[in-house]
Order: sequence, then C-alpha cells, then structure tokens
Amino acid sequence: MKKLYGNAVVGQSGGPTAAINATLAGVIRGVLEQGSDKAIQTLYGMRNGVEGFLRQDLIDLTAFFNSEEKLACLEHTPAAALGSCRKKLPQPQDDPAFFQALIALFEKYNIRYFFYIGGNDSMDTVSKLTAYLKTCSYEMVAIGIPKTIDNDLVGTDHTPGFGSAAKYIAVTMQEIIRDCAVYTVPAVTIVEIMGRDAGWLTAASALGRTVTGFEPDLVYLPERMFDMDRFMEDVRAALKKHPNVVVAVSEGIRFANGSYVGEGTQSGAKDAFGHAYLAGTGKALELAVKSELGCKVRSIELNLPQRCASHLASETDLRESVGVGRSAIKAALEGVTGQMMLIQRISTEPYAVAFDSADVCEIANKIRTVDDAFINAEGNHVTDACCAYLLPLIEGEPNTLYHKGLPVHIIL
Amino acid sequence: MKKLYGNAVVGQSGGPTAAINATLAGVIRGVLEQGSDKAIQTLYGMRNGVEGFLRQDLIDLTAFFNSEEKLACLEHTPAAALGSCRKKLPQPQDDPAFFQALIALFEKYNIRYFFYIGGNDSMDTVSKLTAYLKTCSYEMVAIGIPKTIDNDLVGTDHTPGFGSAAKYIAVTMQEIIRDCAVYTVPAVTIVEIMGRDAGWLTAASALGRTVTGFEPDLVYLPERMFDMDRFMEDVRAALKKHPNVVVAVSEGIRFANGSYVGEGTQSGAKDAFGHAYLAGTGKALELAVKSELGCKVRSIELNLPQRCASHLASETDLRESVGVGRSAIKAALEGVTGQMMLIQRISTEPYAVAFDSADVCEIANKIRTVDDAFINAEGNHVTDACCAYLLPLIEGEPNTLYHKGLPVHIIL
Repeated sequence: MKKLYGNAVVGQSGGPTAAINATLAGVIRGVLEQGSDKAIQTLYGMRNGVEGFLRQDLIDLTAFFNSEEKLACLEHTPAAALGSCRKKLPQPQDDPAFFQALIALFEKYNIRYFFYIGGNDSMDTVSKLTAYLKTCSYEMVAIGIPKTIDNDLVGTDHTPGFGSAAKYIAVTMQEIIRDCAVYTVPAVTIVEIMGRDAGWLTAASALGRTVTGFEPDLVYLPERMFDMDRFMEDVRAALKKHPNVVVAVSEGIRFANGSYVGEGTQSGAKDAFGHAYLAGTGKALELAVKSELGCKVRSIELNLPQRCASHLASETDLRESVGVGRSAIKAALEGVTGQMMLIQRISTEPYAVAFDSADVCEIANKIRTVDDAFINAEGNHVTDACCAYLLPLIEGEPNTLYHKGLPVHIIL
Repeated sequence: MKKLYGNAVVGQSGGPTAAINATLAGVIRGVLEQGSDKAIQTLYGMRNGVEGFLRQDLIDLTAFFNSEEKLACLEHTPAAALGSCRKKLPQPQDDPAFFQALIALFEKYNIRYFFYIGGNDSMDTVSKLTAYLKTCSYEMVAIGIPKTIDNDLVGTDHTPGFGSAAKYIAVTMQEIIRDCAVYTVPAVTIVEIMGRDAGWLTAASALGRTVTGFEPDLVYLPERMFDMDRFMEDVRAALKKHPNVVVAVSEGIRFANGSYVGEGTQSGAKDAFGHAYLAGTGKALELAVKSELGCKVRSIELNLPQRCASHLASETDLRESVGVGRSAIKAALEGVTGQMMLIQRISTEPYAVAFDSADVCEIANKIRTVDDAFINAEGNHVTDACCAYLLPLIEGEPNTLYHKGLPVHIIL
C-alpha cells in the first residue's frame, strides 16, 4: 500500500483498564514523533468510540497534548479518557449503508488512519471495517490495538492492561491474606475475580507464591468444570491445615451442566454482545460454605477497582501499553493495515518483549484461555509455570503524581 | 505513681487496619529509645490479644526488632502483625477469678506496663483492667492506644488507621468515577463503605471535591435516617444532570424504623459484642434502583481492602500512628495509667497535631458520630467543612518497599 497523507482518528472501546490511556498516549506520542514527512497531520480522538465518531464528536489530540506533563498524566489516568462504547458493527453485507455513512465521515475529515484500542469486540469492529474497505475505493489504514484486563486475546503473549489488573489482584490478595490471618477462629474468605471466560486474572492471585510465600489456599478458574462437592472437600482439607482459608474464584466458573455458579444470584441478563452478565459467584459460594460447613465465611468481589486502580498499575504494563500504541503508528506509516498490534515475548529471564502485528480477522472473536500446563492436576490451583509466565508482567510501580493526597488524572 | 521497673507487653485487638502495625512499631521504637534508665527491659508482644496472653503466647519484640529495616517494614505491613482477638472481658466484680489469673501471668513475666492497641472494645478491656488494678496490690501501668478505621472514638481529633482507610476510599472513588464516566447510557453505581455507626469513612469518599472537582453525586451516612422515596428522588435528579451517577453509602444506614437498609440481605447475625453483622446495603439499593428506575445499576462493596490496603496508606496516618505508639511509652514512663492516648489537632492550616491522653473510662463504649455541621441540610451529602477537616488526614503516600512487583510485609 502506498503511504497515505491525511489525518488520523483513534478511539477506545470496551471495558476500561488502568492502561488503555497509556496506549492512547503511545498513539499520540507516535504521531508527535513522526519524521519530517508528517504523513499524519491531525490526530483526532473520537469520543465514545465509533458511536461518538458517527455523531462527529471529535477532539484534536495533537493540539490538546502540547506538553510532556499532559502525556505523562494521561498515562496514569485510569479508564478511557476518550470514553467508550459497546457498539457491535453490522456485517458489511447486511448493512452497507452503515459503512457508506462511516466512509463519508472519514472522507469529510480526510481520515486516512483509523486506530481502535479495545478487546475482542473492538477487534471485531476493525475486522469488519477492514473487510468493507476492501470492497470500496476509499483508502484508509485500519489498525486494532489490544487492551483488555482479561488477557484473553489470541496472537499476543499478553494484553496491555492485563499486567496492571494482575498486579492489583496480586497485591490486594497479599493484603487480604494478611487481614484474614489475624484471627484464630476458622474462617473462609472467598475472593471473586473478573474473567468471564479465561482465568488469567484469577491465576494472578497466586503470584505471591514465589515472592512472599503467601497465596490463596485454592484457586478456581473457568477453564475447569466446577464441582461443589469437590470444592467443599478442598475447603475442609484446607481448614485442617490452618484456620484462615482464602479462596480465589473466577466470576466465570461453571458447573458441569454449563450453568454459571453465580447464575442463581443474577439471572439471565446479557450485555450488548450477548455475553451473560455475571455477579455473585463469590456470594453464591459464601452461602454454600456457610450452610455446608457452618464456619465464618465472607466473600469479597474485587469489582471495578481491579480494572481502574491506576495508582497500583504495573509499570511494565504501562510502558508496554505506551509502546504498543507507538508501534501502531510506526506500523501504519509503513502501510500495515487490517492488523492487530501484539506483544511478543522474547525472553522471560531477563524479561524482554517486541511489538509486532497479525491479521485482525485471525484474532477477533476468539478467546485465549489459560494453558493446560498452567493449571494443576486437581484443577484447584495454578502451577509454578503459570507464576513464572505472569510474574514479569506485574513488575514495577507507577510514578503517579499526587496532589493533596489524591492522584492527578487528566480529563479530556 | 512511682516509676515501675520490669517488662512490658503490647497487644493488638479488634479489626485490622493499614496502620495498626505502625502504632506497634511506635511502641517498639519508644521502648528502644528509652533513656539510660531503661525502666522497661523486655517488650513482649501478645499474640491474638488477651486471648493469646492467657495462653502465654508471647514474642520478645525487643529481640526481634533489631534493625531499622524491620521496623520500617512493620510500619508498611497491613493488619495486626501480632494477630487479633475479639474477646470481651467480664466485669471485674462478676468474675474476679479471671482477673486473678491475668494478674498471676503479669507477675510471672514481671510485666509492669500493659499497652493495648485497639478500638472501642479494646478500650473497654483497658478500662476493666484498670478498674481491677485499683482493687489489688499488683502495680502495673495500663494504657490504651487507639486504632480504628471508623474514626468513631471520642476524645481524639481522629483515630490512627482512619486516615489510611479514608485515603483508600477517596482515591478509589476517584478511580471509580473515572471508570463510570466512559459510557453514555444512564447508569447508577452504588459504592458501599464500612462504618457501622459513624459515617466518617463514607464522608471521605467526597474528598475529591476540593482537589479534583470530582466526587460522588450523593453521599448517605448512618447519622441520618434513610428514606427510600427521597433516595429515588435524589437519584432521578442526579440522572437528569449526567448519565453516570455515583452514590456512596455507609453499610450502616437505617430506615426510620431503625432497621438496617442491608438487613434484608443478611439477617440477624451478630458479632461477639452484639453488633449486628451487616452486608449487602449496596446490593439492597442496587436491586431497589433496578426495580424502580430500570436503568443499568451496579453495586460495589469496598470490603476488606479499605482497611488493609497498606500500599495506599496515608503517610500522615502512618506517621501519626507511629507517634501515638511512641507517645504511649513516654506517657507510661511518666506514670500515666488508665488512659487512652489521643491526637489533638493544633491547627488545620498548616496541619499540626500533638499527642495527649484522657481517662479511658470516659472513652470506652462511646461512639463519636459525624458532626451535624459536616452533613448537608438534605442529608444526602457532606459539607465543605467536612472536607476541610478530613483532607489533611489523607496527605502523603507511603514509602512501600516492593520486591518483584509485590509489597514486602513482615511476618511475626
């Protein structure tokens, strides 16, 4: 593809993370750092993803980010500074008018570069746009940039945003274990962690193993069928070892019949993409343990803080998130299109990565679950190999700026 | 009282905080910093409070803490490093044998100084012990050192441990507000915050007001009767202003008839002190809003992390917590007994405090609720005066040591 000259637009989509703004900052940095050629003139931000773009709700990011301070602040601001959306695009053949309207807007703003930062569903958007672009004469580069705390995208060693959520979970688990250790009466604490289909985040709760020696007694991932009787046996055995049993469970664990363990407490609701909306896996298990074992039991849902606690982001994740954004600009200027940027792990010790890209169609709508080798034979914990894979991703603490005791965030 | 020579014992009791170990470190520092006189020879730590003391489960803290590194690490370790208990002592006149057994143990270890770090219920322990000491010939100093995230002890400007919990809540609320702002569909997020009888912690959720300009739309404290119709009106009015409504509620809010809002979801259970055990205030309101307004609604229970997240402790709180522990030793060596240490605020701007003490009998079993002047007329938010009182308490970030991405804690 020949080099295109014009403007660029970037959007954020899907659930927020603590690092999606770092990726946005990387995209902005990439544009600001272009050579003398300056193929990209103005970088627009679309507010609330494609939904906002269709409303022409745009902000000139190249004008706004006129200082290093602002970019650094953006890198430490949680959630999507541009806003997000959960819009699922139609299939190009089903609704060509929708895509004609989109292209007309690209033309109006002379947009030749389209960057979309998001998860699985956002890659679906890039994939469909790419498919439509092949059928029309409008020349535009479209690149997906991954972000998801869930780490469930295929093709990339890990996803930007995951390391920060993993660090929040690993650190919070250490603090919860400390808290639970103070009493001598038998008690079970169940910590519910995000991850609908993949247990990567729940696995991160065990990261203390090789560092502090403290980890949850039991870890249940959605990759393994959940059996209530086996669970009660596991908890009973753990209580025989010490009185303060801590259990990590993924929100997405299911029984053999395919129903979610948390389904009883929140029935039927689904999000725009048809995913079952879950809440209450921890609560369901809390009630089950209370009724079965009769001991003190508490459930903790880590909830939104695990995805937005930028004060405890992983510096490694932030650095890579900036890097993947910056590399998307580099790739786009080299004519790459229809691809998702990805992170390749060169080595674990010493930890080193490189950025690359792959066909977005090969990535969208697929789910990467936790490797078999990362789950123990009993299906109630993770292996040392899993900890070795995860540990470098949580390394380093963010250099967050505070004012009067509160972190400084940037508002667009 | 003449100066006593012998050993000392210190215990931790009640719920953990992020700063109770800083106070323990302060007590140890106070002992290590005694003049050449060295009235206190060995400082024992009792494991699991008076319960552990009765089992003679003691650790020689003066021997263990032989380095500045260990003390600094203790100051940044959450929860009670010595373990805790919730034992309520009998009245001396009801069970003199219990106290005779205690005194026999004090005599056995030549303990002349008794320090008890805890909340309201722990001050009750110090108060009863002091009452018994007056009736027997054994000479011992007994001092209570306050800690509670609830800030509900009378006689002190604020309690050690509160500032760190308040900072966690204030920072997390900023992050949650960022997270909730990304979508454009009307949504209500209800954040449930600890505080059974006093709304201090919930009030801290509003601290962004004077710093970042962002705070919850509505704040409900247990100091005001909760009315469901008024609440729905408040939420409706907030949704008219913007789509992302965030509400902070105390776990302890009650209806006019005295029943807890969260009672329906967790009925009847009480802790050892007869306090109703609450869970589910946020969940109860989530279900009510969903049924009444039909919009997207989510509840978040901040749960244990708000009391054990030492990675986000307030440096001001940690410094004062060390100070109050150290000052307890100083006071004890000056013959003070039957007193609780307290923090006096000398000035808010610039913020300055001094340590003092008051009769523990005047403090135990009393509750300091949020001042009327700190709650707005509508009873659905806090005033600027409240923010001004709270803000200095969350100032400063802890100098936490991390190893491989996880905070370093000390285990006794």
